[in-house]
Amino acid sequence: MSTIQLAHGSGGIEGAKLIKDIFFDIFGNSDLNLAEDATPIFNNKLAVSTDGYSVTPLFFAGGDIGTLAVCGSCNDVAMMGAKPKWLTLGCFIEEGFETIKLKKIAESIAKKCLEIDIKIVSGDTKVLPKGAVDGIYLHTTAIGEIQKTGLSCTNLEFGDTILVSRDVGTHGAAIFSARDGISLQSSVKSDCAHLWPCVEKLLNEGIEVVAMRDATRGGLAAVLNEWAISSSVEIAIKEDAVPIAREVNGICELLGFEAWNLANEGTFVLCVRSNEQKALDILKEFNQNAAIIGKVDDGKKGRVLLETPWGVKRFMDYPSGELLPRIC
Amino acid sequence: MSTIQLAHGSGGIEGAKLIKDIFFDIFGNSDLNLAEDATPIFNNKLAVSTDGYSVTPLFFAGGDIGTLAVCGSCNDVAMMGAKPKWLTLGCFIEEGFETIKLKKIAESIAKKCLEIDIKIVSGDTKVLPKGAVDGIYLHTTAIGEIQKTGLSCTNLEFGDTILVSRDVGTHGAAIFSARDGISLQSSVKSDCAHLWPCVEKLLNEGIEVVAMRDATRGGLAAVLNEWAISSSVEIAIKEDAVPIAREVNGICELLGFEAWNLANEGTFVLCVRSNEQKALDILKEFNQNAAIIGKVDDGKKGRVLLETPWGVKRFMDYPSGELLPRIC
Repeated sequence: MSTIQLAHGSGGIEGAKLIKDIFFDIFGNSDLNLAEDATPIFNNKLAVSTDGYSVTPLFFAGGDIGTLAVCGSCNDVAMMGAKPKWLTLGCFIEEGFETIKLKKIAESIAKKCLEIDIKIVSGDTKVLPKGAVDGIYLHTTAIGEIQKTGLSCTNLEFGDTILVSRDVGTHGAAIFSARDGISLQSSVKSDCAHLWPCVEKLLNEGIEVVAMRDATRGGLAAVLNEWAISSSVEIAIKEDAVPIAREVNGICELLGFEAWNLANEGTFVLCVRSNEQKALDILKEFNQNAAIIGKVDDGKKGRVLLETPWGVKRFMDYPSGELLPRIC
Repeated sequence: MSTIQLAHGSGGIEGAKLIKDIFFDIFGNSDLNLAEDATPIFNNKLAVSTDGYSVTPLFFAGGDIGTLAVCGSCNDVAMMGAKPKWLTLGCFIEEGFETIKLKKIAESIAKKCLEIDIKIVSGDTKVLPKGAVDGIYLHTTAIGEIQKTGLSCTNLEFGDTILVSRDVGTHGAAIFSARDGISLQSSVKSDCAHLWPCVEKLLNEGIEVVAMRDATRGGLAAVLNEWAISSSVEIAIKEDAVPIAREVNGICELLGFEAWNLANEGTFVLCVRSNEQKALDILKEFNQNAAIIGKVDDGKKGRVLLETPWGVKRFMDYPSGELLPRIC
């Protein structure tokens, strides 16, 4: 690996390897965990997560780079059982970027922050010469107050149930549909949304949550593979139980993608130890497409099996290659 | 203002206006203070600051983009009296970027984190297609534990003393010297360094610190003007008391810059209410070029006066225009 490739940023196996080989080895920091969405700090009182956003196009069905930047980092801390409270926001802006677009993005950010009840506490703006940025990139860090400790992708055990909070792949499909030069007649909208209200209800209702993760880059398949590896378990998923919208299926068939590899921005995977039906009922209050999709098996460790409706079993692989650059 | 201009990112008056007109007005957030380096959260227990880094060249005399990204955000929380403890790190990387350079940057980051005793707790990597990033940009958020509350740029009063922790303008001069196509014979090195050890000593020794700020984009002049405006006071600076290295003076004369407008990355301005000599002695333990440079006057509010050795007074203006893009 003498240069960095697009696949290194895809949320798949190459990205995981880059982070392990360069950042983990050089930083030698046991507090940085690739497989979790956020990290507890300050005696487990707070959780922190950071992300950069370079989505193209900037505006798409269901959201824009601003809503994405707020929801993305807030969801990451929510996945660690923390209520998002504070946000930092940085911008890299290209010289000549239209002020009206910047205002529109700022308005999306403000609206979403109000909705989540989170405060922007620090900001930064860099303006770069033409050609050094493609429009605008954002970066956010969310800090949340932990309401439930001990959630971890290393905790999965035989018998646990896997759920998904809604149909998968809509963000990836919406971005694909919105790209210049691609004119798909599609009504698919990004799932971009904040997840804390749903998580809060699950925790308040006493659901025994083992792990949660929002299925962003790399989609459902990346989350499940990371969990299977981190907990040294086999996860068995029923293919026909995975909710996929008709429009997303259509786009996937056209392009040869699997919907479980496509990015989501407001969809999470949940592992519970008991009360799976009650968990499902709560998820359904927020989205009717929530589903129980599989369970932790007693088979070979570190892999995800996909059981087809015809009884055939195949692997749900860790995504690899570059599916769609600049998805988030 | 129909498009964003380079000057909007310079740390001068245009940048302040952009942030006020767009972000402040739209966000309507009283917790976001333009004039402070970091914001207290969690009942004043912690301070947070975020910054993006797009310096060019990536490697320069005295540091690189990695050291800059660690020191920059850590210094911002230190300026609010907080000991830096946790750091998040994000990267936007251009496809084709050399892995060896990425490793060198990661090593600089690791070394600096070890020196400061700060942990990286969250990370993100985006790889963008060729031409969408110029090499690599970083973004960091530092979180620190507040050791002294109440520091604020709104607290300056008549009679307070202004000090600077070392000679000014070296980072700006070093970046200028390192730029492609400019072949200045210069030994000037960036001041890039972390400031907490010096700040900690000032606080531990009981110095009555009113405000601190590291003089990054916009330099000493931007800090003093922001303070004069925020506290509604006049600040009077003695021109010949401002420490400027001979090499920096040479570069400034050549280019028509003022050293107090040039960026620093390990130099801070300090306002104290008493014990200024003791404060100076502590600063000098860390850098011999520290100096008392002026005081808060009883003159016209919101301006900075520069008294020349010949008794002439002129304004030290708020920097405007684009001095040097991509300085940090």
